[in-house]
Amino acid sequence: MHFDHAGIATEDARELATLYEDLFGLEAVHEEEFDGMRVVFLECGESYLELLEPLEDGTIARYLDANGAGIHHLALATDDIEGALERARKHDVTLIDEEPRPGAWGHEVAFLHPKDTGGILVEFVEH
Amino acid sequence: MHFDHAGIATEDARELATLYEDLFGLEAVHEEEFDGMRVVFLECGESYLELLEPLEDGTIARYLDANGAGIHHLALATDDIEGALERARKHDVTLIDEEPRPGAWGHEVAFLHPKDTGGILVEFVEH
Repeated sequence: MHFDHAGIATEDARELATLYEDLFGLEAVHEEEFDGMRVVFLECGESYLELLEPLEDGTIARYLDANGAGIHHLALATDDIEGALERARKHDVTLIDEEPRPGAWGHEVAFLHPKDTGGILVEFVEH
Repeated sequence: MHFDHAGIATEDARELATLYEDLFGLEAVHEEEFDGMRVVFLECGESYLELLEPLEDGTIARYLDANGAGIHHLALATDDIEGALERARKHDVTLIDEEPRPGAWGHEVAFLHPKDTGGILVEFVEH
């Protein structure tokens, strides 16, 4: 696996994308509305920063209410998401998604519960 | 710049490294004691997961007391850390480190204040 992206909760994905472009010299390479969010990906070498802005109530809106803006999850890329989930099951990791589901940018994704992964919400992503 | 690492605060870096090796197929490629912490780097493609375990009181110990284990910061690699800091200054970003300082693994590092970077503690790192 390799590092795919950090998912960042924000009140304004476009404004934060512009700041990161100016400040870090990154480039916004994809934007879409997905699952009640505006999602912007900034290319960052072989990985990405994924900016998540809620457009309606949902996970990210609730995260922002509880925590404010910041890092929401880390995503690891795999070319075998089913196998990755099977390995997590064997280690008794609690799965938020028992099966891969469609994620942003046409990827397949599945999340692991942070209580079994060192306090980190980990996403498996298969492009 | 490209994504260099996610810094993860943990009570036990070696135990978490073993879990991530088993669960994600990553490899621990460096360990050292640095600035009152045990620091373990796991290779993750061109980037790393940096596990930070406090061995004495300090930033990470206080972070764990306040927040529990989890993602502490995101690091972006640059080959011109002075220039990166200068660009941050021009954008009125509050700098935690006005000048680069020695970080783990022999790198030069400097941190930006999360209040000006979308709620994220951002580290510049020059290898």
